[in-house]
Amino acid sequence: MTVGVLGGGQLGRMLALSGYPLGLSFLCLDPAVDAPAGQVAPLLRGAFTDTRLLRRLARRCEVVTFDWENVSVATLRSAMRGSGARLAPPLPALATGQDRVAEKRLFERLGIPTTRWQAVDSRDDLERALRRVGLPGVLKTRRLGYDGKGQAVVRDAPAAAAAWERLGGVPLLYEEWVPFDCEVSIIGARRRSGEIAVYPLCGNIHSGGVLRLTRAPWGAPRLQRLAAGHLRRMLEHFRYSGVLTIEFFVRGGRLLANELAPRVHNSGHWTIEGAVTSQFENHLRAILDLPLGSTAALGHAAMINFIGHMPARTALLSRPGLHLHDYGKQPRPGRKIGHCCLVETTAARRDARVRRLLAELAVGITLP
Amino acid sequence: MTVGVLGGGQLGRMLALSGYPLGLSFLCLDPAVDAPAGQVAPLLRGAFTDTRLLRRLARRCEVVTFDWENVSVATLRSAMRGSGARLAPPLPALATGQDRVAEKRLFERLGIPTTRWQAVDSRDDLERALRRVGLPGVLKTRRLGYDGKGQAVVRDAPAAAAAWERLGGVPLLYEEWVPFDCEVSIIGARRRSGEIAVYPLCGNIHSGGVLRLTRAPWGAPRLQRLAAGHLRRMLEHFRYSGVLTIEFFVRGGRLLANELAPRVHNSGHWTIEGAVTSQFENHLRAILDLPLGSTAALGHAAMINFIGHMPARTALLSRPGLHLHDYGKQPRPGRKIGHCCLVETTAARRDARVRRLLAELAVGITLP
Repeated sequence: MTVGVLGGGQLGRMLALSGYPLGLSFLCLDPAVDAPAGQVAPLLRGAFTDTRLLRRLARRCEVVTFDWENVSVATLRSAMRGSGARLAPPLPALATGQDRVAEKRLFERLGIPTTRWQAVDSRDDLERALRRVGLPGVLKTRRLGYDGKGQAVVRDAPAAAAAWERLGGVPLLYEEWVPFDCEVSIIGARRRSGEIAVYPLCGNIHSGGVLRLTRAPWGAPRLQRLAAGHLRRMLEHFRYSGVLTIEFFVRGGRLLANELAPRVHNSGHWTIEGAVTSQFENHLRAILDLPLGSTAALGHAAMINFIGHMPARTALLSRPGLHLHDYGKQPRPGRKIGHCCLVETTAARRDARVRRLLAELAVGITLP
Repeated sequence: MTVGVLGGGQLGRMLALSGYPLGLSFLCLDPAVDAPAGQVAPLLRGAFTDTRLLRRLARRCEVVTFDWENVSVATLRSAMRGSGARLAPPLPALATGQDRVAEKRLFERLGIPTTRWQAVDSRDDLERALRRVGLPGVLKTRRLGYDGKGQAVVRDAPAAAAAWERLGGVPLLYEEWVPFDCEVSIIGARRRSGEIAVYPLCGNIHSGGVLRLTRAPWGAPRLQRLAAGHLRRMLEHFRYSGVLTIEFFVRGGRLLANELAPRVHNSGHWTIEGAVTSQFENHLRAILDLPLGSTAALGHAAMINFIGHMPARTALLSRPGLHLHDYGKQPRPGRKIGHCCLVETTAARRDARVRRLLAELAVGITLP
């Protein structure tokens, strides 16, 4: 059985590596000749906008999924039609994840608390949004944003003008800037027949809009129940199949939804070594309507992203129990090129190790 | 960095899957167009006896290893010469593993107890061996034996004659048949710079000469120390790099070496989920002279081989915590086509689950 993957990044790569033991085959589509997934699975090379190529992919697969959500919904719909392949996760979830306004509206509709926000399509809209939502805030493009790209923090009126100069011209969204206590994400899978499995909550640290560190399990049981409840409603709303992620700000014990990702997520990489079944395997099980695997944690895990620079392999592997994931990418400033993961028996031991590691590996962040 | 693998079976496949996260590339050589490793890594298709092809493999790799030990030592030596690639494990270990007589002699030389044995090159030799070693015994080809192939149990003189008829014509070895209490294997890795890491002992159940079930950790600490000591002497003797396995019979608390395998081993598949670092990753670390990973067990693991027939995927995946490994092979009677693994918190829980599983999956063996 062949799974098609739109996007041949590290997510597609880890998807393939976790799916081979299940007896699956993979076919990726990506514009880059050296795409990480293309190093471990056959690659159709070409643009995500090439309907003919997408159709070729779909014809050769039983199910098509994506490791990258900025694929044109219209192109995808047209390519899938009559191909005989199923698309999973479903298109409406993809479309919602692509549009910050649709996302916010859905959060509100499902009773999932989110930040105060306003759609901004003109300079007048921006003035109104600044008045209604207040300062400070964040101006974001409605579409094509990821890893902090297409965003500007707005602290005062001149900053708002500058942000408008930089981002204006495409539909935007203005939302309040939340002085959060921490950021968390909840990741879970649903299969077509309705079974749902939710992972322990992840505690995330970003820097420059990019995830740097995840620790899991994270937070009190009350927070876990709350986040899992929100995720379940979202999964059921879409009659979802696959893995879905919601990121939240935590403020005074409350969850405020920030965004959703209709796919496996960087904050879930710890599940490879830290959970009974990885998010990648569960995504595959879910889209193939196979029984979901246990999402139980095997200990207290931490995942550290390598951005732009990979520490020396020997230095990493000499640390007992440290698991390396090299995505096979050329290092470039700001580029995610790998991560490492460790699993300890207690949260305190984990945090002590993470503190030392962050200092020794000089990855540019520290633990609060 | 590219690792060449002679043999594209399931061992090569799992080697590649465990090596991609380290940022490695792979190139396999195998005669079969549908070789399991060729489904996850580039494949040079051709015979193991094709010196030119082996040379092509060696020229494209930094290091060449094997997932199958019945490769001609002379061909390999000739192919490696001047290629710039290193071969690991070392040729003398491969040569010893290919010849049951050399193997027995080495066990004796290193003070590793083994069964009583005699080389048998003629009918007269056989008579002599029967007198000296006694009955019952096992007549085996000196070379090209694996998974019980090229062996005959000899209970009396007519059986000896029949075995000679069947196997004679090639150099043989006759050894005592040991009424063992159980079979175990010890697996460990050594890197060139001398570091050694040894896994917990594995308890193995064979049927028809083929491994069916492994449980690990296994046996008393005394047995572990004894087996690890034997393995270390062997690793140091060869100034080995890579993973090495020795299989033993256990009889009255004593270990009797049965055979060695200069490679990752079927009885070590449990290390993928059941140990901090898998035997596959440690083999790669060892042959690349990288720091070895922890061999500590994460719990009490069991590995069940699927021979000739694969249970339904849905049935397997519906069992919590059961990890499936499908090798992507066409089912054929007697063929190893996959395995599953489970890890429990106690040996008693593991054994109870294994008992149920063996009955439910109808894999043709039961637990004593």
